[in-house]
Amino acid sequence: MTTDTNWRSPCPISTSLEIFGDKWTLILLRDMFNGKTKYGEFLQSPERITTNILATRLATMTRHGIAQKQLYQSNPKRYEYILTDKGKGLHPILVSMCHWGNEHYPDTWIAPAHFMEKV
Amino acid sequence: MTTDTNWRSPCPISTSLEIFGDKWTLILLRDMFNGKTKYGEFLQSPERITTNILATRLATMTRHGIAQKQLYQSNPKRYEYILTDKGKGLHPILVSMCHWGNEHYPDTWIAPAHFMEKV
Repeated sequence: MTTDTNWRSPCPISTSLEIFGDKWTLILLRDMFNGKTKYGEFLQSPERITTNILATRLATMTRHGIAQKQLYQSNPKRYEYILTDKGKGLHPILVSMCHWGNEHYPDTWIAPAHFMEKV
Repeated sequence: MTTDTNWRSPCPISTSLEIFGDKWTLILLRDMFNGKTKYGEFLQSPERITTNILATRLATMTRHGIAQKQLYQSNPKRYEYILTDKGKGLHPILVSMCHWGNEHYPDTWIAPAHFMEKV
């Protein structure tokens, strides 16, 4: 994990957004909370992330210590991505987004209880 | 407010991100929670949003019913942007981001109590 000193401001909201303020990072975080760890698994999610965005986002998440890259096969080398404690700390944000989304967009999925309660 | 039927999926997290999954919308939301309503006020925030990004984000926030555009001067016409109840419903997300940011980036500002408790 590197500490980036080029933040736009010392505001914790702004700092957070520099790390995950995009349309995809929190989707990958959701997938990791749901037990996905591998490229192929992330690619199968209904939002259809492209391979290049996936690679970029996983690299950024690893660089900021939200996820950890782990070798799970050596020949050929294959990696999986596991949430760190720092990444797990973002769970309340996902829960709030589920509540807000469900309240204002009634056609959205209701997340299963085990997802909403997960730490 | 229009209902966009081109969401990537019915996931409430994905849906939320289509609305505010970028580096600026939640900064503007923070500013609105802090009482800012006008173009000139948003431009003065330390993150230095540009006028074209500001205009685009305010239009998107208005379109999705997070903020409401209101005439406050008629000649020449000048508008201000007020949080709606739907926008206020995003407050828990900002609070979680403050907690997470403060925990993992010790140099970030501690938000004042009135911001953290605001509904």
